[in-house]
Amino acid sequence: MTMNDPLPAWKPTVYAKRQAQLAAIPEAWRLPSIPKDIDTLTSIRTCGILTAQELQWTEATETTELLRLLASRQISAVQLTTAFCKRAAIAQQLTKCLTEIFFDRALAHAQKLDEELERTGKVTGPLHGLPVSIKDRFDLEGFDTTVGWVGLVGKPAKKSSSIAVLLESMGAVLYVKTNVPQSLMMSDSYNHVFGQSINAFNSKLISGGSSGGEGALIGTGGSILGIGTDIGGSIRIPANLQGLYSICPSRGRVPWNCSFMHQHYLVPPVAGPMARSLSSVEHFMHALLASEPWTLDPGCVPIPWRTELAAKPARKLRVGIIHDDGVVKPQPPIARAMREVEQKLKDAGHEVIPYPTTLHEEGTALWTKAILADGGQHCRYLCDIVGEPLIEGMVVGTPEDELSVEEREKLEETKWTYQETYLSQWTSHAIDALLMPVTPWVGYRPKSWVVSNQWLGYTALWNLLDYAAVTVPVTRADATLDDPSGPEQEGWRGHTVRNEADRFNFEQYDIDLVKDMPITVQVVGGRFGEEKAMAVAKVLEEVLR
Amino acid sequence: MTMNDPLPAWKPTVYAKRQAQLAAIPEAWRLPSIPKDIDTLTSIRTCGILTAQELQWTEATETTELLRLLASRQISAVQLTTAFCKRAAIAQQLTKCLTEIFFDRALAHAQKLDEELERTGKVTGPLHGLPVSIKDRFDLEGFDTTVGWVGLVGKPAKKSSSIAVLLESMGAVLYVKTNVPQSLMMSDSYNHVFGQSINAFNSKLISGGSSGGEGALIGTGGSILGIGTDIGGSIRIPANLQGLYSICPSRGRVPWNCSFMHQHYLVPPVAGPMARSLSSVEHFMHALLASEPWTLDPGCVPIPWRTELAAKPARKLRVGIIHDDGVVKPQPPIARAMREVEQKLKDAGHEVIPYPTTLHEEGTALWTKAILADGGQHCRYLCDIVGEPLIEGMVVGTPEDELSVEEREKLEETKWTYQETYLSQWTSHAIDALLMPVTPWVGYRPKSWVVSNQWLGYTALWNLLDYAAVTVPVTRADATLDDPSGPEQEGWRGHTVRNEADRFNFEQYDIDLVKDMPITVQVVGGRFGEEKAMAVAKVLEEVLR
Repeated sequence: MTMNDPLPAWKPTVYAKRQAQLAAIPEAWRLPSIPKDIDTLTSIRTCGILTAQELQWTEATETTELLRLLASRQISAVQLTTAFCKRAAIAQQLTKCLTEIFFDRALAHAQKLDEELERTGKVTGPLHGLPVSIKDRFDLEGFDTTVGWVGLVGKPAKKSSSIAVLLESMGAVLYVKTNVPQSLMMSDSYNHVFGQSINAFNSKLISGGSSGGEGALIGTGGSILGIGTDIGGSIRIPANLQGLYSICPSRGRVPWNCSFMHQHYLVPPVAGPMARSLSSVEHFMHALLASEPWTLDPGCVPIPWRTELAAKPARKLRVGIIHDDGVVKPQPPIARAMREVEQKLKDAGHEVIPYPTTLHEEGTALWTKAILADGGQHCRYLCDIVGEPLIEGMVVGTPEDELSVEEREKLEETKWTYQETYLSQWTSHAIDALLMPVTPWVGYRPKSWVVSNQWLGYTALWNLLDYAAVTVPVTRADATLDDPSGPEQEGWRGHTVRNEADRFNFEQYDIDLVKDMPITVQVVGGRFGEEKAMAVAKVLEEVLR
Repeated sequence: MTMNDPLPAWKPTVYAKRQAQLAAIPEAWRLPSIPKDIDTLTSIRTCGILTAQELQWTEATETTELLRLLASRQISAVQLTTAFCKRAAIAQQLTKCLTEIFFDRALAHAQKLDEELERTGKVTGPLHGLPVSIKDRFDLEGFDTTVGWVGLVGKPAKKSSSIAVLLESMGAVLYVKTNVPQSLMMSDSYNHVFGQSINAFNSKLISGGSSGGEGALIGTGGSILGIGTDIGGSIRIPANLQGLYSICPSRGRVPWNCSFMHQHYLVPPVAGPMARSLSSVEHFMHALLASEPWTLDPGCVPIPWRTELAAKPARKLRVGIIHDDGVVKPQPPIARAMREVEQKLKDAGHEVIPYPTTLHEEGTALWTKAILADGGQHCRYLCDIVGEPLIEGMVVGTPEDELSVEEREKLEETKWTYQETYLSQWTSHAIDALLMPVTPWVGYRPKSWVVSNQWLGYTALWNLLDYAAVTVPVTRADATLDDPSGPEQEGWRGHTVRNEADRFNFEQYDIDLVKDMPITVQVVGGRFGEEKAMAVAKVLEEVLR
């Protein structure tokens, strides 16, 4: 664009939307300026907007602890909602993690919950008074679901998604929706409407995607529990980058319906919880499934949370492990995390067996083919509403990728055969779960990875297979241990790059940039293996303690 | 075709296939001639091919009784398999219910089971030694899966379907595959390869479809347990016409994979058991799910048989009832069956409430649109292999019905919205299950209904919704009670026909033709409501006793 080009016609829509977004944050909760040189958590703690008590509440890791305080009326829903609204407001100013902000609605809802508890002595559901954030993929009646598209601004949802309905029926207080990449098909949450979301702990790094705003918000303490969605890693990658616990479930466990249902039969997108403790994730799943979402959402399967399967087993585990999928070599902090996890499990007497990755490239290729199958039509349609350009680097098809009805059916059959083959391998290994990295990288600068040849094989394969996975933070990148010039890193320094994606990942590694960033392990439990993965995650937590 | 036309090129393939089929029946089990004037059961009982004991075994209604005899070695698997092979052979000659016949393989398998039991003292799985028949939609390695197409003759399956693998691992003896209509999309099991299957009890009437051969075989006692498939009524309609118990489950309960996976995401086809007692059906489901089919079949959901949900409740039921869906008025025996069922439940203290059908036409129209969505391409492709003509009356699309990728996605969204609306209605009625007819008709002559405007709304709606249903035979058409000129039938005689399908159904009713034919009630249990429907079916059996 030269100086003489007129402003794109859609820009005023964006300005107005951002103005409205800012206006939703009370003056008193606005930072006088955005500090550049201190980290987000320090900014939040020192800005003086939250009281000491509000800081304490919002830094809790256990939802159950806050729920206990709410139920026993040691704090009111209005107090807790105020605290999280404040913190989310600051997090938004520092990380651009939000889209829709509706604090007034939240506080009014919290007020009602307080009155109801006062009047009846009984809590309204298992999440009574707990502020919960949701990704801007779900609909909330009366608010936009832009999913990062300018063309969808100003088109408020006529009906709430069932997850929103259920959360409110369980007593949760919805207060914000969280940022995403345009089209959702990117691990960097950047779009023209709401801008670039950045990492909760490091303003030079991305928060991930597509549930990147959710990851940043929970990472900063602006939320204690949020709902993301995942079709190729979109819950797990932001969880990984912000050191969060999460579940990417099999299809049918968590309600998933919204006004953006495109392409959902080739690879099933799923919704799942993200939080700062394993027990918060489990408590949510237990409570959600006890509410019988299958009576509301026709896609849900009536399997309650299987407490006995999710319990930490008394016996020793047998787990599979993947250190490196053979396509993109994990960076030193990730490789070390996997080695440490293996060693600690073995030290505790558990069996850890190498798990083959020979089927992984084929599966990831099927995933890619399925994801690109519409040839980018849907995104072009959304761009064309206002003439918005497609952002570079999204995993979106071009006309050459488009599949006909017959080709889609063929792909569906190929996928089925692949799933059978993979299931046979999975069953024959007789493992409790599989441990592996979420990504082979620790962190990237905004807009960098997305222009590379992005390798999503560590996460996307499980979406194709519809296998459940849990993320567990296990360590942090260490300036000494993970220094590429250090004595432990001969293997890394001597690595012969395998392909373009591997080259990018190898060359980008910069310990000075990513030091202290969290490293998260993925626990894959198989299809409908949420509870199995949870049980193994509990053992992992125990051996890491 | 005039006298001068040459024989179609595919005819010799058919002759050779039928010759091979006949050759699979030992000479000693062939009837000298096909009796026209006596019924099938009498023919079987009097032909002298089965011993008295074999007649007794094959007329058992309870699989558990035969399994007990097998496990206690009071009969051997070879003895029982011989009995069912004989009876199936005769049933085939009388009703054309079979496609593939492999008695030698079955007897060799039975011999192995006997030896194993002798050697170890232990049964091979919960179906040890029980002959089980499967519809010719499933693959069995080494045998054709023609699905009624001449073009698929002589192309033996390279791999067995998972239901076949599981049945054998559970100790079942496979011995025959059963007849279907060309394309499967018809309730009359007629195809060019294996001919016209007829009803087990009345040679003037159809056996139904698409699991019509299965229905006829079990009806004649040539099998005690068979596996059918259903995408619009294909298990329930033959069960209805032969007075059988069956389950048409939600997708994911019973393994369903085969080499004919076409179009399975718009409306899910499902597999399910057909038998001569409710407890046989339950025993099968229980045993199948205890074998954990989800470790073999990637489409299966890990929900074991929920015995507590399937138990006859101590409390009184609240059931919905549909006497007439408002589109096609049920013929007098069906209307009477529904009235009797309602009265008997009420007499026993259960609550029976009218259930609305206002959403049913819309749902059935969506089902039809989905089923026809390929514009008949798949069938044309199968016809073209050998130049076989498409048989008239199949529910197969024409080029005008073909939907583009976008139209399919739109349909998928419309279906989702419809499912949400229906689920909301279903939940709000708070019923244990819904009782309704399977079809509004008792029986038709071969090739008659299929040329009419076939109304499948009584069954197909539940496939669109993916709701489970159980069939329960409740009465028989009665020459006096259901005489259209009788005193009870004023309503029927005075009926103003509503549409072409209703006119056909009204005009075809002939009590002389259908008298004594079984009438079956459909118990709809909702999505994954197999056990709920089973529990209600048990109560129904009790009040009808």
